Amino acid sequence: MSRIVMKFGGTSVGSIDKIKNVANIVKTTFSEGHEVVVVLSAMAGETDRLINLTNDLSDNFSEEEYDVVISTGEQVSVGLLSAALNDNGIDARTCLGWQVPIITSSDHMSARIEGIKSEFINAILKEQKVCVIPGFQGITVEGRVTTLGRGGSDTSAVAIAAAINADFCDIYTDVDGVYTTDPNKVPEAKRLDKVSYEEMLEMASLGAKVLQTRSVETAMTNNVALRVLSSFENLNESKGTIVTDEDSINDQRIVTGVTSSVNDCKITLIGVRDKPGIAAKIFSSLSENNINVDMIVQNISESAKTTDITFTIPKADIKNAEKIMKQLRTDVTYESILIDSNIAKISIVGVGMRSNAGVAAKMFNVLSENDININVISTSEIKISILINNDQAEKAVRMLHDYFLLTN
Amino acid sequence: MSRIVMKFGGTSVGSIDKIKNVANIVKTTFSEGHEVVVVLSAMAGETDRLINLTNDLSDNFSEEEYDVVISTGEQVSVGLLSAALNDNGIDARTCLGWQVPIITSSDHMSARIEGIKSEFINAILKEQKVCVIPGFQGITVEGRVTTLGRGGSDTSAVAIAAAINADFCDIYTDVDGVYTTDPNKVPEAKRLDKVSYEEMLEMASLGAKVLQTRSVETAMTNNVALRVLSSFENLNESKGTIVTDEDSINDQRIVTGVTSSVNDCKITLIGVRDKPGIAAKIFSSLSENNINVDMIVQNISESAKTTDITFTIPKADIKNAEKIMKQLRTDVTYESILIDSNIAKISIVGVGMRSNAGVAAKMFNVLSENDININVISTSEIKISILINNDQAEKAVRMLHDYFLLTN
Repeated sequence: MSRIVMKFGGTSVGSIDKIKNVANIVKTTFSEGHEVVVVLSAMAGETDRLINLTNDLSDNFSEEEYDVVISTGEQVSVGLLSAALNDNGIDARTCLGWQVPIITSSDHMSARIEGIKSEFINAILKEQKVCVIPGFQGITVEGRVTTLGRGGSDTSAVAIAAAINADFCDIYTDVDGVYTTDPNKVPEAKRLDKVSYEEMLEMASLGAKVLQTRSVETAMTNNVALRVLSSFENLNESKGTIVTDEDSINDQRIVTGVTSSVNDCKITLIGVRDKPGIAAKIFSSLSENNINVDMIVQNISESAKTTDITFTIPKADIKNAEKIMKQLRTDVTYESILIDSNIAKISIVGVGMRSNAGVAAKMFNVLSENDININVISTSEIKISILINNDQAEKAVRMLHDYFLLTN
Repeated sequence: MSRIVMKFGGTSVGSIDKIKNVANIVKTTFSEGHEVVVVLSAMAGETDRLINLTNDLSDNFSEEEYDVVISTGEQVSVGLLSAALNDNGIDARTCLGWQVPIITSSDHMSARIEGIKSEFINAILKEQKVCVIPGFQGITVEGRVTTLGRGGSDTSAVAIAAAINADFCDIYTDVDGVYTTDPNKVPEAKRLDKVSYEEMLEMASLGAKVLQTRSVETAMTNNVALRVLSSFENLNESKGTIVTDEDSINDQRIVTGVTSSVNDCKITLIGVRDKPGIAAKIFSSLSENNINVDMIVQNISESAKTTDITFTIPKADIKNAEKIMKQLRTDVTYESILIDSNIAKISIVGVGMRSNAGVAAKMFNVLSENDININVISTSEIKISILINNDQAEKAVRMLHDYFLLTN
């Protein structure tokens, strides 16, 4: 007997029929003798419908009341699933955020879970009931309703799994696991049986949308074994991917995945006067305006007294960033500003890189052999990212995937 | 300065524009220096949408989870209104059923309010905030979500008004008060400035849908002054109707209102063997099947050993009642059964009847002069009800209204 947290996202509970399907999956697991906690998102489309109501009402909608309104989406889906389980002869009950309680920070609309009382959940499990908990929501210590921000249901599930010492936290999605690269673009992509937290973190933050970054962090911190499974596949066929600590993974490849993202744009300040504190000024201005900078590259020019600074930011922030850069011009002297939206970030990820020299060189070789020009390079311990022209993104991913994941 | 509970129904908060309108009405009252608690229903159509989800899922939906699902409708509307008030510069916050808390019985789907803690509401009012509370919902002492059954928001408002010793409980609806009869059918109908609890109770239970019966009972028990007001009229023009105790009403008429209802049907058992316990058998069978019997008439026949028993039940229960009567036939011997759906119940209501003899005679005279045949008569202290043919209902109401409410 294991203790299992099963989390289903919005598309998995997007209609009455799909909710019945989820009830069947839960029934199968429960009938195997496991203790089961289910965590749900709102029905697909419902959160957007509620957000639209708040937008229609005000451009400056109260954050506290936003959480009161939006959190109802999950309350509906847990009520429906719990009733569907009862209908299937499974004893189940809902346990809302305030009933658990799930205590969060008071950062409305993007609260962080600070603590989850396990007593009530444990009591329900002891009664051999399935406990159905809405994801994405909690309350402050003062008892006000909060939400965790979009995608927060994964984090709820992992935090609940940690709080009740669950053996597994199963994240059911519309894909059957984590792949070596996007299978929609590269048919040869292979499902990974296991992937380490660190790799998953890099891949999640690079745009592989299977798991929320924060949920992987929470799983890593609390050593919760995550399983990514499909809620649409035949139950017996779905094997999924286990996200776990590095040591539990035997057959370690050097590169685990290739990811691609086209959400960023590149800004280059040309001819920046090279004096101390310039970089600090640029990036603190961006940070103060909540613009998230990803890659930063500065080329030191030995001859001249100027340098070029390149960085990437989300495309949505282009206009705002441009304004800020122009305001800075009296302070940060530079010759001109270049903005390029036609870029893609391609990354290879793998904990094996730590102990294998020359991975970067191999990556650059593959690209060069295919006439793909590299704009910017940035590396971490287990990841190498490059910026290239958008047009060449698919080709680059395919070639890197062929080289690192199919041929060795 | 008064302490006022303002209650708005589903049509009053049926769209974002209407919610903004409600925010204006609340702002006007609050700006006059009053302490204000607002109680809301779900946006019109929302409760039906949620009920449909539960119906689509199961014919036997868990009652506990039904309440979890359905209660979200009011949570959305209070969040929206509270934000609209904040937008208007009014300090406001929601206070959900579990936050107050509003403690109810554990009869899910039709719970009764057992107690309302006033401390939290009082604290919010003391901070000079408007407190926005969802109607229709509460929690059990064990902390499970309950709903009061349809229309329960009126009852919530009155119970909250009683708990916090409010000076007024203002029920905003789509009409501007209680009328002497249905103004849609009789243009001469007049708005009543004041009506007693007892009269309002009789009128509510007779189908005048301005206020829920249970809310009037609660108001009477706790002596809460109810005002029925329109949320659509210009604020200055809307005077409404005060529902209060009899003694506060000076210019007492004999008849206060004429009501008409076509929701019932009439069942007559002909030739019932007249022996003790027969009536008990018939009506306990109906009651066990949750069929609500309204009028009962038995004609004692002196000559024969049989009698005719006539009673009325809601039209929705015809088939069920017919089945029960047929099952009873071995026990309750009767010759035949007659079912008539083409009937209307016409009532005149007024506390003045108590001290005025001959009101019934006058009523029957008016009807006879207009060739309206009376089927069944039933009377209470302050009400006389008759059953007549459906076709003659409008005429009967008009004539009685003319006679009792326009001419004297």
